[in-house]
Amino acid sequence: MIIIMKPGASPEAVGRVTGVIEEKGLQVHLSQGHQVTIIGVVGDKSLLEGVNFEVSEGVERVVPVTESYKLANRKFHPENSAVPAGNTVIGPGTLTVMAGPCAVESREQLLETAFAVKKAGASFLRGGAYKPRTSPYSFQGLEEEGLKYMKEAREATGLGVICEVTSEHAIEKAVKYVDMLQIGARNMQNFELLKEAGRAGLPVLLKRGLSATIDEWLNAAEYIMAEGNPNVTLCERGIRTFETATRNTLDISAVPVLRSRTHLPIILDPSHATGVRDYVEPLAKAAIAAGADGLMIEVHPDPARALSDGPQSLTFDQFEGLMGRLKPYAKLEGRNF
Amino acid sequence: MIIIMKPGASPEAVGRVTGVIEEKGLQVHLSQGHQVTIIGVVGDKSLLEGVNFEVSEGVERVVPVTESYKLANRKFHPENSAVPAGNTVIGPGTLTVMAGPCAVESREQLLETAFAVKKAGASFLRGGAYKPRTSPYSFQGLEEEGLKYMKEAREATGLGVICEVTSEHAIEKAVKYVDMLQIGARNMQNFELLKEAGRAGLPVLLKRGLSATIDEWLNAAEYIMAEGNPNVTLCERGIRTFETATRNTLDISAVPVLRSRTHLPIILDPSHATGVRDYVEPLAKAAIAAGADGLMIEVHPDPARALSDGPQSLTFDQFEGLMGRLKPYAKLEGRNF
Amino acid sequence: MIIIMKPGASPEAVGRVTGVIEEKGLQVHLSQGHQVTIIGVVGDKSLLEGVNFEVSEGVERVVPVTESYKLANRKFHPENSAVPAGNTVIGPGTLTVMAGPCAVESREQLLETAFAVKKAGASFLRGGAYKPRTSPYSFQGLEEEGLKYMKEAREATGLGVICEVTSEHAIEKAVKYVDMLQIGARNMQNFELLKEAGRAGLPVLLKRGLSATIDEWLNAAEYIMAEGNPNVTLCERGIRTFETATRNTLDISAVPVLRSRTHLPIILDPSHATGVRDYVEPLAKAAIAAGADGLMIEVHPDPARALSDGPQSLTFDQFEGLMGRLKPYAKLEGRNF
Amino acid sequence: MIIIMKPGASPEAVGRVTGVIEEKGLQVHLSQGHQVTIIGVVGDKSLLEGVNFEVSEGVERVVPVTESYKLANRKFHPENSAVPAGNTVIGPGTLTVMAGPCAVESREQLLETAFAVKKAGASFLRGGAYKPRTSPYSFQGLEEEGLKYMKEAREATGLGVICEVTSEHAIEKAVKYVDMLQIGARNMQNFELLKEAGRAGLPVLLKRGLSATIDEWLNAAEYIMAEGNPNVTLCERGIRTFETATRNTLDISAVPVLRSRTHLPIILDPSHATGVRDYVEPLAKAAIAAGADGLMIEVHPDPARALSDGPQSLTFDQFEGLMGRLKPYAKLEGRNF
Repeated sequence: MIIIMKPGASPEAVGRVTGVIEEKGLQVHLSQGHQVTIIGVVGDKSLLEGVNFEVSEGVERVVPVTESYKLANRKFHPENSAVPAGNTVIGPGTLTVMAGPCAVESREQLLETAFAVKKAGASFLRGGAYKPRTSPYSFQGLEEEGLKYMKEAREATGLGVICEVTSEHAIEKAVKYVDMLQIGARNMQNFELLKEAGRAGLPVLLKRGLSATIDEWLNAAEYIMAEGNPNVTLCERGIRTFETATRNTLDISAVPVLRSRTHLPIILDPSHATGVRDYVEPLAKAAIAAGADGLMIEVHPDPARALSDGPQSLTFDQFEGLMGRLKPYAKLEGRNF
Repeated sequence: MIIIMKPGASPEAVGRVTGVIEEKGLQVHLSQGHQVTIIGVVGDKSLLEGVNFEVSEGVERVVPVTESYKLANRKFHPENSAVPAGNTVIGPGTLTVMAGPCAVESREQLLETAFAVKKAGASFLRGGAYKPRTSPYSFQGLEEEGLKYMKEAREATGLGVICEVTSEHAIEKAVKYVDMLQIGARNMQNFELLKEAGRAGLPVLLKRGLSATIDEWLNAAEYIMAEGNPNVTLCERGIRTFETATRNTLDISAVPVLRSRTHLPIILDPSHATGVRDYVEPLAKAAIAAGADGLMIEVHPDPARALSDGPQSLTFDQFEGLMGRLKPYAKLEGRNF
Repeated sequence: MIIIMKPGASPEAVGRVTGVIEEKGLQVHLSQGHQVTIIGVVGDKSLLEGVNFEVSEGVERVVPVTESYKLANRKFHPENSAVPAGNTVIGPGTLTVMAGPCAVESREQLLETAFAVKKAGASFLRGGAYKPRTSPYSFQGLEEEGLKYMKEAREATGLGVICEVTSEHAIEKAVKYVDMLQIGARNMQNFELLKEAGRAGLPVLLKRGLSATIDEWLNAAEYIMAEGNPNVTLCERGIRTFETATRNTLDISAVPVLRSRTHLPIILDPSHATGVRDYVEPLAKAAIAAGADGLMIEVHPDPARALSDGPQSLTFDQFEGLMGRLKPYAKLEGRNF
Repeated sequence: MIIIMKPGASPEAVGRVTGVIEEKGLQVHLSQGHQVTIIGVVGDKSLLEGVNFEVSEGVERVVPVTESYKLANRKFHPENSAVPAGNTVIGPGTLTVMAGPCAVESREQLLETAFAVKKAGASFLRGGAYKPRTSPYSFQGLEEEGLKYMKEAREATGLGVICEVTSEHAIEKAVKYVDMLQIGARNMQNFELLKEAGRAGLPVLLKRGLSATIDEWLNAAEYIMAEGNPNVTLCERGIRTFETATRNTLDISAVPVLRSRTHLPIILDPSHATGVRDYVEPLAKAAIAAGADGLMIEVHPDPARALSDGPQSLTFDQFEGLMGRLKPYAKLEGRNF
């Protein structure tokens, strides 16, 4: 931690800050410039929890030096992680495609989709049974009934199945039916839910919050991992910006940024990022080329009649075509697919 | 709902759209321009749930005409609402000031603060017992013990007390001790929590999400109200933008925008919005002048040692001085304070 | 300047960095932590122009300590500045209201408006003769003819007149007719234009760019001041965010932030910030309460027929009513108005 | 254009709106819903310039139906354009790589770089002679001297050369020395500069503004094209968002969005978008996979000593390695490279 003093801060003001640091058992390194004094803090900064140097007289600002996440941090875990999930392993050398409808709408819709995405080469079936919807009057999901169809689809096809959970209650139900839990963007900082997910014993896909910084996102992953669950996969699904031409703005740079900061696998969701079916293919290719470990793509038997997110869903034929065209990109990146 | 067709959309494409509308029992109004055909839909649009005209061939875009929130909508409730909470009523003609520490840290800290903010003229004591923190390694709150201190502070001072709830479990506890529940920014779209809060029987303060549009915010209020709880108050606490000079960007325009769209009372939180103690006073005055029904302000006996958000907290003296200087602004706005 | 090294950076990597610093004639202060080495640089950092420590091996990041703007910086000029302009002085103790149409459309429109805003108490007439419009096919302004009407309006009413300039050519013309030059949001980082404006001999109103940070804005002011022109006034007119309920998001916190960083006067423009006539009054009051030195407000004889920005313009009657209602707020702030 | 009336708008209010439309010679299509009346306007909407229906009593909002840009619009020019520039053609079937230093610093630096990027396979040399810098005290470029070096580099290597222009004066100089003009992000809405560039007789690379929507960007291109210059290429270089892990956020979705709206070629600049050398390669690959027609990449003989933007520059070796690794991606997309 570095504390930058205001120009002309008095020796007393500097002394008050260094006094607190030393009193807590840490060391001070003082750097006296022509205009500005800088105080370096050396030692375990957790001893300073609850000390707010910012409000001490003469302090200009405080600059943190080390990240607050440890388990997710590449610095302490230099190798890329591989997350076992369903019948696959998400991570280096593979390209995991999770496909399926935004919402589970019926047994027929789900099973039909499961067979189609399996045939096209996906390794996971996605499908929402608990749907977080902007309006309380929109379709909210089939809940446990939907989970049962997920399990049935798994047994019928051998696909792994993943489902978003939105409450402790949903987690309790979901663990009985699915292979992987998904925490959605709106719940990325629902810390109670993160802790529950960390204790549930299943791998977790953590979507990035609509306006979460990459550091906040890694701290959210840390909440899950701190409960003893190392099997976290990150999913970039677009952030909120001023641009309205797409539903969100896919932050493709998040792939190399995450790669430098964390060892966790990274998946991209071009369907939610853009909200437009025609933009899914170029962004899926771009995601692979940027180094993503997988893709999440919405597929629906009849997008025009989907109960949610129809405009961004692919038909079975479109998905199969896409999968074929993605193959050479995966190959270039040395990914089994 | 209006459906705008692409230039040169075929009569068959138009026919497919109008066919679906009529099949669902709604009426079509066709407007054929030189370049573009526009289809107006007349009738109850909930009959179109699950129909995605965007993916129908030839459709350029779909423009919604009516808001999806009803109970929170000023159109159907033209008078400003007054929300009874604690010993006060939040709404027209009053200025409700909620003050206290970011986090309840100890019995002494809370009681001392309660007496100080009561003396200065606040009508509510705020204080977090369940703290959503970016890092799992930061102080997470005293939980039920903190709630007990809140109740004790209420009994000792007569202030109303308000506490953030972050889970169903926290709500179950909080209803036994406090007068008003707070849903924080990070949980604004935690819809399960909103529903629980709606059923809890207490008034609810709903903070705006970091990147929530005003319409999403009003839909979140609708989740609470749809459970039968009309006593919702909205709290603007800054949105996330590119500017880093302040912790968040206070969206002061939200006051008149909300006033035009909803009848619910509006409170502003200049402490969280700016993150800087010196900016609280000018923004508190601005909030009153813009028409806010109240303020939420962080006060701490010793901000330099606060376990969270110290840099933005006022000392007791600073708060008392501020309250005196706010009085003439409240008076100008005809607000009892 | 502080250079933070990566954990485990080699002594050679540290040595390469400190070698360059010392070679340039500056001093090094080394702070060796358990995990991280921090290098403080003491001395005139302009000697390091063109050295990029970020790409030196082992460097994590570089943290600047001092601001790059000097003339606009409150640290070197602690008193608030007063900018003489037209027949008034913008700054402490006054509230300068600049009012008028977005665009000068005709002699009659401008003169009529000038008399109306003068009567209501404005001290400046605003009006665009060179209009930066999103589309090349929209009305682009009357250019020199418009400037002539501005001058005529000044002579007829005694108001100061201000006009936006969008090119060197426009500045050459404008200096012959107006009292103050305006640099618009889209040109805030048109550095050639800033330099020209700095040399033009008239006070300059510098609007904030749509996505400019406060530091970039103050650096833009520095461009004008570095040409020898100290008479710069800053105008906040809303920044671009994700919220679409208003045309832009008025960053009201910019008032106290600027007050702490610069001595220059600050004006707010609630008309462009919101784009909605009904929101102008609450935000004008808020601006005064937050400590602004003035307001810029759009007024038009017939907003429904304005050639640009009609929806946010006030009628004469609305403006006169508003000015009366603003008086007590200006009085509370000790501002002559 | 569609005008949506407020619920319960009076027949008189509707009549006032339709009266104006008909008076201007356009046709009205009325759609009377249960709650809301919608007015479709049929005919040439330029006849309504200067009419602001938003402020007419009873109007809720106005929805535009057609884009304001025509020459840049794919609807009126369905084939992808190819822009001849230097010794290449930017557009379908090619991948144009523009490489070189952020700023021209010396004859040696530029020539050395020119030969290196030529050898690695670039077809254009980039280099700034007029540098828009945040602070007036930073290096501002060599101006005409820098242009002369550009010309010399062109003659020595056969590369096309491109240089940013920041004023009318710079355009006058640049046309004598370079093959293509670049308008930078900060000047994207410097409309006077756009018009000058449109008249200069050279192809123009138009970078996207830091917070420009795609529609504003296409309207800026329209300013150039409306002067008779069809040879415009668009360059996405990152937009400003809340995320600070990268200098800007590369909006990779802009590629398919632009592809659907315009026929102009699209280039991506991963160097400015990220500001970090290590992120350039994954984003360059992603850009090609997303369908970009070219790349702009910063290369410098000694990035640690670059006078601007060193941290994002590649060394010669790094650039040559990158170009080799990009080849199979270009091939997959059917691009000659």
